[in-house]
Amino acid sequence: MSDQNTTYEPLDVDTIPSRLGSIAAITKRLGTDASQWTAREVGDGNLNFVFIVTGPKGSVIVKQALPYVRLVGESWPLPLSRAFYEYHALTRQGLRDPQSVPEVFHFDEAQALIVMEYLTPHIILRYSLIGGNRHEGLGRRLGEFCARTLFRGSDLAMDAADRKADLALFAGNGALCDITENLVFSDPYFDAEMNRHTTPQLDRIVATLRADIDLKVEVQHLKAAFCANAETMLHGDLHTGSVMVAADEAIVIDPEFVTYGPMGFDIGMLISNFFMAYYAQPGHASKSDDRTAYQDWILEVTAEIHDVFTVEFSRLWREERTGILYPKSLYEDQGHAIASEQALGHRLNAIWRDCLGFAGIEMHRRILGLAHNADFETIENENLRAECEARALVLGRQLVINRGRLNSMAAVFDLAKFIGRENLL
Amino acid sequence: MSDQNTTYEPLDVDTIPSRLGSIAAITKRLGTDASQWTAREVGDGNLNFVFIVTGPKGSVIVKQALPYVRLVGESWPLPLSRAFYEYHALTRQGLRDPQSVPEVFHFDEAQALIVMEYLTPHIILRYSLIGGNRHEGLGRRLGEFCARTLFRGSDLAMDAADRKADLALFAGNGALCDITENLVFSDPYFDAEMNRHTTPQLDRIVATLRADIDLKVEVQHLKAAFCANAETMLHGDLHTGSVMVAADEAIVIDPEFVTYGPMGFDIGMLISNFFMAYYAQPGHASKSDDRTAYQDWILEVTAEIHDVFTVEFSRLWREERTGILYPKSLYEDQGHAIASEQALGHRLNAIWRDCLGFAGIEMHRRILGLAHNADFETIENENLRAECEARALVLGRQLVINRGRLNSMAAVFDLAKFIGRENLL
Repeated sequence: MSDQNTTYEPLDVDTIPSRLGSIAAITKRLGTDASQWTAREVGDGNLNFVFIVTGPKGSVIVKQALPYVRLVGESWPLPLSRAFYEYHALTRQGLRDPQSVPEVFHFDEAQALIVMEYLTPHIILRYSLIGGNRHEGLGRRLGEFCARTLFRGSDLAMDAADRKADLALFAGNGALCDITENLVFSDPYFDAEMNRHTTPQLDRIVATLRADIDLKVEVQHLKAAFCANAETMLHGDLHTGSVMVAADEAIVIDPEFVTYGPMGFDIGMLISNFFMAYYAQPGHASKSDDRTAYQDWILEVTAEIHDVFTVEFSRLWREERTGILYPKSLYEDQGHAIASEQALGHRLNAIWRDCLGFAGIEMHRRILGLAHNADFETIENENLRAECEARALVLGRQLVINRGRLNSMAAVFDLAKFIGRENLL
Repeated sequence: MSDQNTTYEPLDVDTIPSRLGSIAAITKRLGTDASQWTAREVGDGNLNFVFIVTGPKGSVIVKQALPYVRLVGESWPLPLSRAFYEYHALTRQGLRDPQSVPEVFHFDEAQALIVMEYLTPHIILRYSLIGGNRHEGLGRRLGEFCARTLFRGSDLAMDAADRKADLALFAGNGALCDITENLVFSDPYFDAEMNRHTTPQLDRIVATLRADIDLKVEVQHLKAAFCANAETMLHGDLHTGSVMVAADEAIVIDPEFVTYGPMGFDIGMLISNFFMAYYAQPGHASKSDDRTAYQDWILEVTAEIHDVFTVEFSRLWREERTGILYPKSLYEDQGHAIASEQALGHRLNAIWRDCLGFAGIEMHRRILGLAHNADFETIENENLRAECEARALVLGRQLVINRGRLNSMAAVFDLAKFIGRENLL
């Protein structure tokens, strides 16, 4: 019997077979004899339960929202509806960029439960970057994902009424937006209660950042854009912990922070996490591998994400611009295709500027805020960790403040490398 | 008996007493003996029925949406729900800027019917500007209205969850947005079916505008901002036909185009209509009054709208900035009040730039699109009318293209006056 429409109750490894054993979409993947199923809880995120459930025929992932923030506990309630929004985000992403996200087999709104494809032998990209692994085609896949989901979720492509309906739908996911609004855009920039940072090593640089008025103004401009500029359906939390990778495959997971927001947000958060992986490498070096070649590979992937994003977004602009914005009736149909190219250039520039700004903020919040990155956290030597973190903090400030004047990824890399050679503590 | 929850049926002057005669909120204003009521239809807008209903005790306005665009006919259906959105806009505007809008006595969603305060001896501002009348305090009132409704409907002031709920609510008003998106932002810039302009006098200048690639790109950037940049609850149609004036009073009506959009939209459309009134004056001159002094008065009011908007918006920024953006916890509470002032300056600049852009587009659509202005339409001499219109078209282009480089209203006035002296045909 399905749990649909019954009172919410958290699953556990013992009750999963009885509670999910009669759902055809699941038995089809695991086998009908639920007594042979085994489940283990593997969630390492901040919010939810995640189970791998295995039966005679295969495995599935069962993700269930909890009515509070797992990282913090019951003192921080969080609505179960986030599973509803994640489900609707996953289905849209799957249509807009096929094979980019796990296939959804079953959704139960009352139980805040999504049953989806078990990805194996995939691991979380963040840990793979800590481990020094390379993945063929990673930058291409992520660049395409950003271009396709961001373009196809906007008024550039969608029917205007459909976009407004989705805007209204995802506006209901405010509790998750609230986390981003506070933890990403405000808390890192003052001495907020839930903050932490590597102390005392970073104290001086943190104090400098929090006294930086220009920075605090620009960050709030970017927050205003995040809150108001509802251009497209964002993943909303697209860091390297939201990507699962195998040798030559990358799958994007966990879009529960989905919201309508500015195009540059997802891609900015994503490349930010690559820059942090880059700066963290000295903390993961060994005698046999100083990780400098691997750092080069990380930057190559970062460049490829943005290059592919630009190429694919431009292709979609030329081939799929069927929405109400920059309509062909005004441009191509009037013999003014050059207007379309001119507008595309402007839009790409605007996305690039926003992208850099959001990237800078993401670095700050991962080092100064509540939710830190394993890239840095797994560096046990605190002095070494702080050195790595300090570089990311300084690059972050540069990206926010100078986002209007950094005209290419090459310029950003020059800056990142320069800062990488500095001893900032 | 109230019509609530019954099938929609258009009112007429004969059925109004029987259909509305038992609604206490109305009988309280008109008197309980509905047989003594008289009604007349006075709607001169493009969309709805408007009745003045008078009884022994007084009068009320009864506004009822029709299931189609009145200006065009049944061939252009338009949802009755616009009355629902107008009602919700009116109540919010009334809270955010008390006495700025008519008091609502009764709303019937099924009948798409709003019963509200009858304003007397008020007339539509547009006709008063055509008539050459002056109104004490007009600029102040309109500047305050813009500042208060735009500030207080945004994440600068509102609880974030409330703003998201309103964003979702008003996203349902897409059919009305669709009119703006097409008729304002696209149709004027190509030879769209419903367009018309004073021909052949304007043909050459219209062809030049429609071949202007830079203009067509910038207009679509502004359209993108209108569609996506959901900063605040807009009136959505704030022209001089949406303001009723008496000697020293101004009341804003007809917010059925309400939507969340960019701060600069309402104020841009408003000042645009003052510029058009300015350029139309030679068409309303008489032997005894060449209207040049009145033109000066129009520009004074235009300047005052923007000055008062700036002062009042700044006051609200300092005193009522209780939303999630630019929070005092980050600025004032850290001894960084100057960051708040810096951010305010940036925001006012951004609003000003958008305002000029939207103002320019409004001029174009009123002369090239479907819905023209009485300011120009009432000039019977077509050559004279075209001369006036041409100046507005040229100023409009300047405002769109150079909105980032026109740094003050004084600079805009210099430009407007220069163009006013040109003979463009």
